[in-house]
Amino acid sequence: MHPARRLTFGDIIREHRRSFPDAVALVDGDVRLTWPQLDERTNRLAHALTGAGVGPGDRILWLGQNSFRIWELLGAAAKVGAMVCPGYWRWAAPEMAFAVEDFDPKVVVWQDEEIGDTVGKARAELGSDHRALWLRHDVEGAASAAGADSYEPFLASGSYESSLTSGSYESFLASGSSEDLSADVDPDAALLVIYTAAITGRQSGSMLSHRNLLAMGASAAWMGDIGTETAFLGAGPMFHIGNYQFWGVPAFVHGGKNVIVRRVVAEELLPLLAAEQCTHAYLMPPTIAQLVALNREAGHDLSHLRASVAAPLWQGTVPTDTSRFTRNGGGEGRGYGQTEVTGFAVTGAYGGTGTGNAGRPGPFTAVRVLDGTGQECAVGEAGEICVRGDLVHLGYWNRPEINEERFRFGWWHTTDLGRREPDGTISFLGTTTRMLKSAAENIFPAEVENCIESHPAVREAAVIGVPNERWAQDVKAVVVLRPDADGVTAADIIEHCRARIASYKKPKTVEFVEALPRTKDHAKDYEALDGRFGGGGYPGGDTLGAGR
Amino acid sequence: MHPARRLTFGDIIREHRRSFPDAVALVDGDVRLTWPQLDERTNRLAHALTGAGVGPGDRILWLGQNSFRIWELLGAAAKVGAMVCPGYWRWAAPEMAFAVEDFDPKVVVWQDEEIGDTVGKARAELGSDHRALWLRHDVEGAASAAGADSYEPFLASGSYESSLTSGSYESFLASGSSEDLSADVDPDAALLVIYTAAITGRQSGSMLSHRNLLAMGASAAWMGDIGTETAFLGAGPMFHIGNYQFWGVPAFVHGGKNVIVRRVVAEELLPLLAAEQCTHAYLMPPTIAQLVALNREAGHDLSHLRASVAAPLWQGTVPTDTSRFTRNGGGEGRGYGQTEVTGFAVTGAYGGTGTGNAGRPGPFTAVRVLDGTGQECAVGEAGEICVRGDLVHLGYWNRPEINEERFRFGWWHTTDLGRREPDGTISFLGTTTRMLKSAAENIFPAEVENCIESHPAVREAAVIGVPNERWAQDVKAVVVLRPDADGVTAADIIEHCRARIASYKKPKTVEFVEALPRTKDHAKDYEALDGRFGGGGYPGGDTLGAGR
Repeated sequence: MHPARRLTFGDIIREHRRSFPDAVALVDGDVRLTWPQLDERTNRLAHALTGAGVGPGDRILWLGQNSFRIWELLGAAAKVGAMVCPGYWRWAAPEMAFAVEDFDPKVVVWQDEEIGDTVGKARAELGSDHRALWLRHDVEGAASAAGADSYEPFLASGSYESSLTSGSYESFLASGSSEDLSADVDPDAALLVIYTAAITGRQSGSMLSHRNLLAMGASAAWMGDIGTETAFLGAGPMFHIGNYQFWGVPAFVHGGKNVIVRRVVAEELLPLLAAEQCTHAYLMPPTIAQLVALNREAGHDLSHLRASVAAPLWQGTVPTDTSRFTRNGGGEGRGYGQTEVTGFAVTGAYGGTGTGNAGRPGPFTAVRVLDGTGQECAVGEAGEICVRGDLVHLGYWNRPEINEERFRFGWWHTTDLGRREPDGTISFLGTTTRMLKSAAENIFPAEVENCIESHPAVREAAVIGVPNERWAQDVKAVVVLRPDADGVTAADIIEHCRARIASYKKPKTVEFVEALPRTKDHAKDYEALDGRFGGGGYPGGDTLGAGR
Repeated sequence: MHPARRLTFGDIIREHRRSFPDAVALVDGDVRLTWPQLDERTNRLAHALTGAGVGPGDRILWLGQNSFRIWELLGAAAKVGAMVCPGYWRWAAPEMAFAVEDFDPKVVVWQDEEIGDTVGKARAELGSDHRALWLRHDVEGAASAAGADSYEPFLASGSYESSLTSGSYESFLASGSSEDLSADVDPDAALLVIYTAAITGRQSGSMLSHRNLLAMGASAAWMGDIGTETAFLGAGPMFHIGNYQFWGVPAFVHGGKNVIVRRVVAEELLPLLAAEQCTHAYLMPPTIAQLVALNREAGHDLSHLRASVAAPLWQGTVPTDTSRFTRNGGGEGRGYGQTEVTGFAVTGAYGGTGTGNAGRPGPFTAVRVLDGTGQECAVGEAGEICVRGDLVHLGYWNRPEINEERFRFGWWHTTDLGRREPDGTISFLGTTTRMLKSAAENIFPAEVENCIESHPAVREAAVIGVPNERWAQDVKAVVVLRPDADGVTAADIIEHCRARIASYKKPKTVEFVEALPRTKDHAKDYEALDGRFGGGGYPGGDTLGAGR
């Protein structure tokens, strides 16, 4: 590709420095960086990283809470062709140690506040086998001047001693020159890596490229009506794709403002939302309820903020967002996505609501519902949701076999079960990582549950497999009826399924219960159900590292 | 690039067939094609093209007026990796012959109505040296059934005789199978080729890739608030990038409707705008004035239509567009672009209005104002507008030397003169293809004119070069004063320039005139000025094939 057609995440910062010379890009506590300041800091950091031996394809791991420095590291990594993984700060020490071993970073930037002990334990566990440069980022200015244990001086000077194995982020930053590095970086190279929560098995780092992020930013800006005027409070976790798509990256690529908070404290959010005149915020429903309650007395001016998919929770205290994402999402912001397709690749914003609960794919995405042989399922038939296009990630770091499997037939296989509806919308039905086997047939519980739950007397259902010597497994449904359901029998449920899905998928037995057991994430607790109703004999045993 | 990340223009049609099974994609006279029908026709056409020996990188030339078949040809070419050039139907016979020789198409689709005679002359001029398959597209159904001279049967059957050298489009189309071809096409391959009007010298075909069009479509959809609900009346010429960007391609990539008219007849547009409930239309100011006048009596319901940048001309008869393009463009839809950067790559939609008349670059674009050595000009200094990113074309077909020159220093050189203003916006000042030479210095008339026109007493100015034996050329300004200007002298004008631009750029002599001579396109007529005031001795003599 000719250099004149290569546009990277670093170029966004270079460009905004020129287009918006006075605008603020990042706010975090006392830190306020304009685009020119951000460009200069990322240049310094890029030089410091180069000095520390970080080049194209090398890795940087962040072990801390939300910080403007994650954006800054992304900008610097973009300029040298490296990748950044914002780790999950709640990881236990063995999980941190696993991430360091798996991701094999040349630089680890870590935080002392709240998680210093855990980081210390992880480092002790790792021993001397790993050779990363460890930089503590939360060091006060005075301490950072002291030398080796400070990130800012490192960044500022550009001559950080490469023999050091630990220091502070700011001293590291101080070590770099502010000249633009001008490296030739491939837009299809990895930049942001996010470890996804595997349903079972170990986590894997989904590698998102510059192009993934720029395409997502442009597409999400259309969905959410995001522009230069956007001021986004990124109160969601920065190790999660949601905070980047709704609306960190679209705001960033359009020259808007990202306001970052280390963690969510409702009392601190209110004055910040008011002072920064935030237009958008990534907030969980309990936080919104807290804010509404607190502001009855505090009376902060939140008139710039728009209530989005959780609009009713705001109880009319802020105006409602009128973007396509909110209005076409049926008020729920409906959609389907996963980290591996850079977030919601399918939403109600594209073409409006319809039968399917996920909407339609956007202009950078193609979706096919495929069967196990790579053939497209007929409209109305369930199969695996597969995706192509500019939003499809590069694969998981260091998982060649899984990547080969998941990219088969030229499509990214999401491991999620879906269906194309007659009106063209997509329904997300559940995961394919839970699978039953009856004779030679694969059966996905999500599809059978979806069918049972369409029975008017059923509130919810869970499907498990019970061992059968001859057929491997039998399908068993555990069903919760609605309070007003009367006289519904197991035979009714089985007949309901027989009429709607292939006969081999219908339950052989049905158990009625008052309520389904739940995991702490409020998911159906299949392990408990297996224990109670004799489930077992599942095929494989080890499933792929899918997650959302 | 892994196939799962390759998304082409053909995939847009494949996807919309599934996402919008009942929606109409194209309307043209009696023809109404839904997305599934368009997908099927482009498949047929792709097979027919393959049968006619058209493969990746091969060319198809359209010699006709606007037609849905241009979209159809783009879709089919996208599926085989070929490129389509919609030629200018007003070309004279020698220009058509030049285009055939230069573009060297394997297939020429031509129109008999209005231009059949010209096409015939061009073919006679070409003689037997060229070996394209000529397909007439405007053949009635009955005639097409007759055989060789018909496009539709060709498309429908897929077994079109490859030995034929002429036929009709529909018979050609009929020759193809409706199965999806599923060729592996590179999104960075050329798809749409547009010959641009060179300031001087021969025209050149700007090659736009799948990625160029998809990025433009996504970005323009954001600017113009274009979505599935958009019904666009494409009354502008389809050999011009404007009709694709505002708003043909954004509507197409979002599953909206494109309504095509062969040519503009105001009386025919009114019922069409009403019947198709068009939301957007590409109309020239005189046409809008006609429509407003006609509709006073006709009374068609135009309530779906939005008045855009020419809103005042609608005299309140249709609602005003509130998209970013209209409202941030200061009501003028301000911007800067050229075919070679897929249209407006810089507009007021990005970041709002400011000092510069062109606005700011969007998220798929980087802009630098460079001097002749590839160094960035300081803010406020004039230089050549250079562009990078996903909107930069692949170069001109068959012009390797020009391409090398124009892509120097890793940037696309637009040959247009511009300036970065202190607020970050870009000013477009004029073209650099008119250049004067004084000693070793290059002087761009546009920059000097811009300076003179900033004098409060000046209405407009034109700058020419007059031969000087020692210094090559002297700068001469031809100035039109405002009616109320009083006592302004040549010395005042020269002093005004001396204080504002480099001394060697200031005019040596100034002539005052009542009005500047104009070309038929209403541009300043520099040839007439040279003739009247002794201009000449310009450097080079042959300039690059720039155009907009």
